[in-house]
Amino acid sequence: MEEINVGLILLWIALILFFARISLLIERWGQPPVLGELVVGVILGNLGLVGIHLFQPISQSEIMRFLAELGVVILLFQVGLESNFAEMRRVGGRALLVAMVGVITPFVLGTYVVGPLLLPGLSFNTYLFLGATLTATSVGITARVFQDLNMLRSPEAQIVLGAAVIDDVMGLIILAVVSAIVTAGTFSLLSVGIITVKALGFLVGAIVIGQLVAPLLGRALSTINTGKGMKLTLALCFGFVCAYLASIMGLAPIVGAFAAGLVLDPVHFRHFENPEIVDELRVQLAHTPLESKDTIVAVIDHHAERHITDLLEPIGNFLVPIFFVLTGMNVQLETLFDPQILLVALGITVVAFAGKAVSGLVAGPVNKALVGWGMAPRGEVGLIFAAIGEQMGVISAQVYGVVIIVVILTTLLTPLILNWLAARQLREQPSF
Amino acid sequence: MEEINVGLILLWIALILFFARISLLIERWGQPPVLGELVVGVILGNLGLVGIHLFQPISQSEIMRFLAELGVVILLFQVGLESNFAEMRRVGGRALLVAMVGVITPFVLGTYVVGPLLLPGLSFNTYLFLGATLTATSVGITARVFQDLNMLRSPEAQIVLGAAVIDDVMGLIILAVVSAIVTAGTFSLLSVGIITVKALGFLVGAIVIGQLVAPLLGRALSTINTGKGMKLTLALCFGFVCAYLASIMGLAPIVGAFAAGLVLDPVHFRHFENPEIVDELRVQLAHTPLESKDTIVAVIDHHAERHITDLLEPIGNFLVPIFFVLTGMNVQLETLFDPQILLVALGITVVAFAGKAVSGLVAGPVNKALVGWGMAPRGEVGLIFAAIGEQMGVISAQVYGVVIIVVILTTLLTPLILNWLAARQLREQPSF
Repeated sequence: MEEINVGLILLWIALILFFARISLLIERWGQPPVLGELVVGVILGNLGLVGIHLFQPISQSEIMRFLAELGVVILLFQVGLESNFAEMRRVGGRALLVAMVGVITPFVLGTYVVGPLLLPGLSFNTYLFLGATLTATSVGITARVFQDLNMLRSPEAQIVLGAAVIDDVMGLIILAVVSAIVTAGTFSLLSVGIITVKALGFLVGAIVIGQLVAPLLGRALSTINTGKGMKLTLALCFGFVCAYLASIMGLAPIVGAFAAGLVLDPVHFRHFENPEIVDELRVQLAHTPLESKDTIVAVIDHHAERHITDLLEPIGNFLVPIFFVLTGMNVQLETLFDPQILLVALGITVVAFAGKAVSGLVAGPVNKALVGWGMAPRGEVGLIFAAIGEQMGVISAQVYGVVIIVVILTTLLTPLILNWLAARQLREQPSF
Repeated sequence: MEEINVGLILLWIALILFFARISLLIERWGQPPVLGELVVGVILGNLGLVGIHLFQPISQSEIMRFLAELGVVILLFQVGLESNFAEMRRVGGRALLVAMVGVITPFVLGTYVVGPLLLPGLSFNTYLFLGATLTATSVGITARVFQDLNMLRSPEAQIVLGAAVIDDVMGLIILAVVSAIVTAGTFSLLSVGIITVKALGFLVGAIVIGQLVAPLLGRALSTINTGKGMKLTLALCFGFVCAYLASIMGLAPIVGAFAAGLVLDPVHFRHFENPEIVDELRVQLAHTPLESKDTIVAVIDHHAERHITDLLEPIGNFLVPIFFVLTGMNVQLETLFDPQILLVALGITVVAFAGKAVSGLVAGPVNKALVGWGMAPRGEVGLIFAAIGEQMGVISAQVYGVVIIVVILTTLLTPLILNWLAARQLREQPSF
């Protein structure tokens, strides 16, 4: 076993956390905090262009990349916990519609229109992969923007989150079909069927079984309650196991973490409180002169077990910025330097935005623009699609460069657009 | 860049956290919780003996080993924060004495007495390395036991923590000297002097500069306070940077994290509170009928920024058990199967305990046994010494096996012994 340079990795984490925190100053100019973290990442990751290669090893480190993944798993778990399950169920049908429109439109536009038009003379398989890449949705970016805006429980956010999860399932199927067509010229309905059943099986299973198991688990383990960390540990175990199950079903781990958060109702954890002490203190509080109330409030604070979302917050504050800064670090600004590639990419980016924006039109009586643009960031999902296409030899280095730029622009511009749309909505309907 | 199996690692973390949490039931029988986590680790790590190899990859995974290291860094940072700096300074002289006796006694006994006696016919260099290995102290185990016992602020705990930090510096010097003697037959006073100056320089520098910088940093950054996570982020950055600095000075990262916690006074973070809202709410509380006080208390709870130790607690609950379970997993029970090796190891273990126990005698007017036995666990530090000796060819596989057993026994038995000593003290002086 080789030695891990623990000290150096701790320094990297400290630098990322520090710069990410400083970048949040961007809020003062009304910009979304996540954009600050992404931009810090882009800067740190591209200092090599001015001869500073100090930060290069960070994004290559397996440990840093795992911490980033852990961060986005925690984020989606938090987002799931903060999501309203009833609301999610209410908008489920519309989320399905949004996901379908948001997959079909960019796929058709990419494969049959902008692909042949802007990248003429390439094989149909290349256009197919380009179309497939454009169907992706990176729920991480959008979830974080809605979280920053304190809008997670809005119907718009719930529709986008639901649609993004469905998008992940559809993306899995599209990838299977497109890969089969590229390698075999055709695809087997059976194998695609198996993939679909597994993915849907996970989602339905997680939600149905989760709703039955979560309260039982909470009750059973509360009888052997072993102190303060119990609630957090159980919640993390549940979230991580669901993320694992999602991953073996072919879905992204974050989809599993989100589903876990969704079914985990804080009510299941009521057994872990210490109500006797708290009640007694509250009675005491009523008969106490003002000046000594501070102490009692502090004691209540200590004994009333904290809400699970409060317990997850420090873990999120620690790990989530690592994900967004590393996402930014993976942006290679060199790709923007070839004017021809850049022009083509800009054209495709417009289509990438438009293809998702129209999906908002079927979102029902909500802020349709917020939903449509919320589906736009391709993030790491788009990169995975493009990388697979490159491995299969249907996506050339040039086309790969184009896709990277599309991913960069949809990822970096979406927080700005959503922020602006939300501010406008707030101005128009201040009661919102 | 190869793909990381994020899902699988999340499953591993979930399993470790779950079993570690269940193991805390050991408290019901009056046993220290940390022992439960170590034993769970020993069981999981040795299931290969009954043909279950499922958990083998966990302790080999670089990512898991990093998470464990991160866990013990967080633990020592927490312990540093909870330590009383004034008390630590008050007992500093005695901690130095304890460290010196606790280093010299086992070194002399190991090198000149039990080495030649129990392992006759080996080279002097082997005995030298054996003696050096016995000087180690694993502060992680002891700190955790004192934390579990809620005794971190006792003078005994402060002396042991101080002595363990000094022990780390001395261990560094001993390792340099012994390694030089083994390879060159002699050692250069200059190079040993440089190592000593670097290590001491870090410790003195961290404490002197840290005390000056920490409040300034807190005040400066409070002017650009960007929300709830600020306090935690700054604290983590400070802790991690100190851990990094310790590591480049040749010390263990946990020593740096501990020093960071020690100089970081919660007072420096008072700027990050939201006193206006809290004060207003407290006034309101005084004029409120009993039945609606719940809400106000909850709101105060939300607005009064939490203490930094409260914010670190969930991160600790998440990561610290990984360290102790992995420490347990590294115990290879096969080493205990050779009766001859086991017998020799038992003899050396007695000396290992005795050599540290006598150090308690110079601890002044405190519970001397608690101090002496608190210094006993060799843990990962002892393993590092032995591994270096093996690499240099002075420690044979057989002697390595002996050392492993000594490390296992001092690590697993110390929590039991400390727990028993603390319970006895509590019985004899209930006012303690």
